[in-house]
Amino acid sequence: MNLSLRAQNVQASPIRKLMPYALAAKARGIKVYHLNIGQPDIPTPPEMIKVFHDFSDEVLAYGPSQGLEVYQKSLVRYYAKHGVDLTTNDIIVTTAGSEAITFAMLVVANEGDEIIVPEPFYTNYNGFATMTSVNLKPITTHAKDGFALPEAAAFESMITPKTKAIMICNPGNPTGTVYAKEELMRLAEICKKHNLFLISDEVYREFIYDGLKHSSVLSIPDFEEHAIMVDSVSKRYSACGARIGCIVSKNQELMQATLKFAQARLCPPTVDQLAANACVYLTDDYFEQMVSEYQSRRDLVFDELSSIEGIICKKPAGAFYIIANLPIEDAEDFVLWMLNDFQIDGETVMAAPAEGFYATSGLGRNELRLAYILNKEDLKKAMHIFREGLKEYKKTH
Amino acid sequence: MNLSLRAQNVQASPIRKLMPYALAAKARGIKVYHLNIGQPDIPTPPEMIKVFHDFSDEVLAYGPSQGLEVYQKSLVRYYAKHGVDLTTNDIIVTTAGSEAITFAMLVVANEGDEIIVPEPFYTNYNGFATMTSVNLKPITTHAKDGFALPEAAAFESMITPKTKAIMICNPGNPTGTVYAKEELMRLAEICKKHNLFLISDEVYREFIYDGLKHSSVLSIPDFEEHAIMVDSVSKRYSACGARIGCIVSKNQELMQATLKFAQARLCPPTVDQLAANACVYLTDDYFEQMVSEYQSRRDLVFDELSSIEGIICKKPAGAFYIIANLPIEDAEDFVLWMLNDFQIDGETVMAAPAEGFYATSGLGRNELRLAYILNKEDLKKAMHIFREGLKEYKKTH
Repeated sequence: MNLSLRAQNVQASPIRKLMPYALAAKARGIKVYHLNIGQPDIPTPPEMIKVFHDFSDEVLAYGPSQGLEVYQKSLVRYYAKHGVDLTTNDIIVTTAGSEAITFAMLVVANEGDEIIVPEPFYTNYNGFATMTSVNLKPITTHAKDGFALPEAAAFESMITPKTKAIMICNPGNPTGTVYAKEELMRLAEICKKHNLFLISDEVYREFIYDGLKHSSVLSIPDFEEHAIMVDSVSKRYSACGARIGCIVSKNQELMQATLKFAQARLCPPTVDQLAANACVYLTDDYFEQMVSEYQSRRDLVFDELSSIEGIICKKPAGAFYIIANLPIEDAEDFVLWMLNDFQIDGETVMAAPAEGFYATSGLGRNELRLAYILNKEDLKKAMHIFREGLKEYKKTH
Repeated sequence: MNLSLRAQNVQASPIRKLMPYALAAKARGIKVYHLNIGQPDIPTPPEMIKVFHDFSDEVLAYGPSQGLEVYQKSLVRYYAKHGVDLTTNDIIVTTAGSEAITFAMLVVANEGDEIIVPEPFYTNYNGFATMTSVNLKPITTHAKDGFALPEAAAFESMITPKTKAIMICNPGNPTGTVYAKEELMRLAEICKKHNLFLISDEVYREFIYDGLKHSSVLSIPDFEEHAIMVDSVSKRYSACGARIGCIVSKNQELMQATLKFAQARLCPPTVDQLAANACVYLTDDYFEQMVSEYQSRRDLVFDELSSIEGIICKKPAGAFYIIANLPIEDAEDFVLWMLNDFQIDGETVMAAPAEGFYATSGLGRNELRLAYILNKEDLKKAMHIFREGLKEYKKTH
């Protein structure tokens, strides 16, 4: 029995595919510090867990396809606090950011159409593109300049009649790069000139350091018809298992079409939406503490990395990732070696090879993505092991 | 800004699109008996709700892409009770049956490939087919013979080089039809002869009446490479809001490919999986009571319908739907008229026009789908209103 070509070709998750080696290390009694996956360690707000405890409907019923109205209204309030003025008609609640991205691709692009994405990019965009038969066209950014947004000319040279959108992740996974307002305006000009949508994945919107402010695609003036924002509660409330996200646009024709796709899958999880709803009413100090904690972790990891000879990386201003360009040839081989052959006092470290975050073949082979989702004590130990491991690996490879 | 053609063309839910008229009736003070949507009224098992109350993880984390192992193991036990011998490798937990069907389509068919489906079929198959660029090819079945499975020759005449699978819903939504073992064997022979997959949507597998037994696609001998089963906890545990389903196959190559799509969307909701897990351990009398309740409702609705002059319908043996062929021209117009212009003592009834369940243009225009998801007292009132409404409508149309 032949499977479809797309089933044969869809990318295996480069983040998850090395997990068997981590499990094998653990089976040998090795403690593995996981810097490879974006699963925050910060406790989920008790206010959110309490909603699960209080759920008392007699029937766990379908909600509306666009999301529970109470939650849509809370989201209006959440974005208003961030200077974005919306109505419930501008928001469809989705089953996590994943579904929101899939909907965005379906609604802007036909089979074979193209979406331009700065690379390295969140690797699962590849899976969603395969599912929706969209061609992602990468535009390369570089570790040495902090993965800054390319100039307009670089984007324009890639636009074809099949190009329907530019997609960004801001702040960036896996780069941690935060685009400034001017960079967004540059993208908006390109999109207006060439009639493109701008899809902005803002699931890390709260993870902004050094006192910077986040600029949403939704706050670009005179750009309502083009702007599509994708969001999720997974990271900002340490609630990855809730699977609640949303797609937001003031383009009503687009939202009506998105709703039809949403109706096909009926609704997102009901109790989890109610739980996410409670988070909108957390006090400001929740984010202040969280951001302060992540910022100090970033500083720790960045200081450690930049003190290692031969590593190239710029200090990222957002998300909770950092990409390190290593003085070796094959970062995946290094990750495997760390899991299979290296330990200090029975402990080792796992990071994510960055190659899977690039669409251009061969790029990122000597880069790793590190997620700083451990407490600082563990991070310190992990970075020590990383440094010593790299030293040892270089001697033998 | 132009949306994609697929966004412009995707079907609006024929079940949900008439909701505004029901809301308008309610705003005028009319009580509406909803027979239009498959939202069970039976209470969700308290054992399931208790899992939400007991959830105590500090971090609401991602689960594995294939589902929580504890739940996969419980599903193995569940299917073993139904005579199907599986391992956890044969099961991927999905975000409801919706996602399971989408995965099944992606993994068997490329863009433009064809899947043959007996019509009328669950209308959201259209949405999933649009999302995955698959062409559904309907093979018509008829109310007058209880929507029995067509002969092999009818299927074979539709097979082209692009045909990759036959998809069935057993027991059927919207027909209530249960396929006998012999009918499944007939389909299996066709699939083996023409190298096709058989996708079987069995979300109503527990809703079987008159002492019949359900035959799963997974129990067809010597058919492991072809059989794909799609399931969901939504209906059988009155847990539509949990969004937990699964895709099951003993074809390991197919499951490996499905896992890659599953990895792209990370995981299904975590707490809801744990809640679904508890349901596997309900005692047998849960289903005995549920089936007995639905069977008596079916009898009530069927007896009422078949006593109305001009209505054609056969007694369905499963699910909780019945399709009635009415002695009028336009069933949607009748539904709207019932909502806008008819009431008895301030009450009216809403059913789902069946036209949206047919892919062949023009079919089903005089048919309605009724879901018997109300208690018998309400059903009795609803059927009285339905009967009187139809009488009145026929006088004036």
